[in-house]
Amino acid sequence: MKDVDTPLQDIKDRVLAFAQERDWEQFHSPKNLSMAISAEAAELLEHFLWQSPEASRADMTDETLRAKVEEELADIFIFAIEFANVTGINIAAIIEAKMALNAQKYPVDKAKGRSEKYTDL
Amino acid sequence: MKDVDTPLQDIKDRVLAFAQERDWEQFHSPKNLSMAISAEAAELLEHFLWQSPEASRADMTDETLRAKVEEELADIFIFAIEFANVTGINIAAIIEAKMALNAQKYPVDKAKGRSEKYTDL
Amino acid sequence: MKDVDTPLQDIKDRVLAFAQERDWEQFHSPKNLSMAISAEAAELLEHFLWQSPEASRADMTDETLRAKVEEELADIFIFAIEFANVTGINIAAIIEAKMALNAQKYPVDKAKGRSEKYTDL
Amino acid sequence: MKDVDTPLQDIKDRVLAFAQERDWEQFHSPKNLSMAISAEAAELLEHFLWQSPEASRADMTDETLRAKVEEELADIFIFAIEFANVTGINIAAIIEAKMALNAQKYPVDKAKGRSEKYTDL
Repeated sequence: MKDVDTPLQDIKDRVLAFAQERDWEQFHSPKNLSMAISAEAAELLEHFLWQSPEASRADMTDETLRAKVEEELADIFIFAIEFANVTGINIAAIIEAKMALNAQKYPVDKAKGRSEKYTDL
Repeated sequence: MKDVDTPLQDIKDRVLAFAQERDWEQFHSPKNLSMAISAEAAELLEHFLWQSPEASRADMTDETLRAKVEEELADIFIFAIEFANVTGINIAAIIEAKMALNAQKYPVDKAKGRSEKYTDL
Repeated sequence: MKDVDTPLQDIKDRVLAFAQERDWEQFHSPKNLSMAISAEAAELLEHFLWQSPEASRADMTDETLRAKVEEELADIFIFAIEFANVTGINIAAIIEAKMALNAQKYPVDKAKGRSEKYTDL
Repeated sequence: MKDVDTPLQDIKDRVLAFAQERDWEQFHSPKNLSMAISAEAAELLEHFLWQSPEASRADMTDETLRAKVEEELADIFIFAIEFANVTGINIAAIIEAKMALNAQKYPVDKAKGRSEKYTDL
């Protein structure tokens, strides 16, 4: 599978089928899935705890670390996609809407090259 | 945009263009993005802190809560996608690989209807 | 050591000495320690992912789970205390100040038996 | 209150009294409190998202940021202490036990000046 020709819906369907085959929908409440996303996000974070931001870029060329990071990132996506499945959320639509909102909060001329929160720009 | 006909690559491109227009790639190291994903995951979590798992399902029919939850979930996706952008990760491929691994860890006959970790099955 | 006769300062001193002996203060920036606290908090969270809140109370009587949970909670305290060490924060004072603020946000007569955020009371 | 003469038990008692007065123990299951600790840890993290670790040290001299950071750190302590309250955990004892374990994992001669995980030392 490649990002260039994989519609989001295909991945949503696979993730849902995996849960349904195991009768796991009973555990997949929004509350529980929000915890699972946080837990997986922290496992990704853990790989970069004591590094400088620059070193974290270079480290991604290390095959062993990269393989672990790919697994953690995949877990985040899987639980976030399952969250969308159980709540009937259209992922492409909410990303589009949030990016439109972010474009208003962070207009290019004010935000360019700056990392401050929009309330401080 | 709809999940059914939006390839992942389209969303990756949009998220990348947003960052590039603002010259934000300098801030988007793997370390910093892993923190951003965690921060957004926690904002999603926060909506369900004191609820029962069952109530969290019912609550998603509340329009106001739903709108907030959609924003938090979108933020998680946006930063996770940007993480894939800056590290050159093929999202569909890592999800497929991780689900194959999960299928080995959690075979249907052992995992059906159970929430234990695979090491305890 | 017992909570009843252990001043916070004693624990702060021990945690600091541990880091200093290992020349770890160079890694203990506020940014990095905030990540470490989040990572450890997520490890605690992970033990309760798929349970009901009620079951999570009962489970703490399981000796094996309890031992693991105690380790995760200890890690959270250790990194939070080290954060206070490196930033010169008086823990007792900030807790006292925050509880005074919380008492204003959540007066007993309005908040009793309710889990809503103060903005919704 | 000062760390030098405040026993942990005093703070535990205050945190417990606050919850009891509001009849909040019904919400304070281990599961829910583990979520609250994670949510507060992420709020602390959020202040340091795009900074270098070095800048995060310098920033703590900024009075406005410092005041916010103190509030987030206090929240982490308050929920971690309440977790200990509801589960009957002796905080000083678990910290002492975890530090003894860490001393074994990270002996001074091997760990000095190094940030690798003990499994990689």
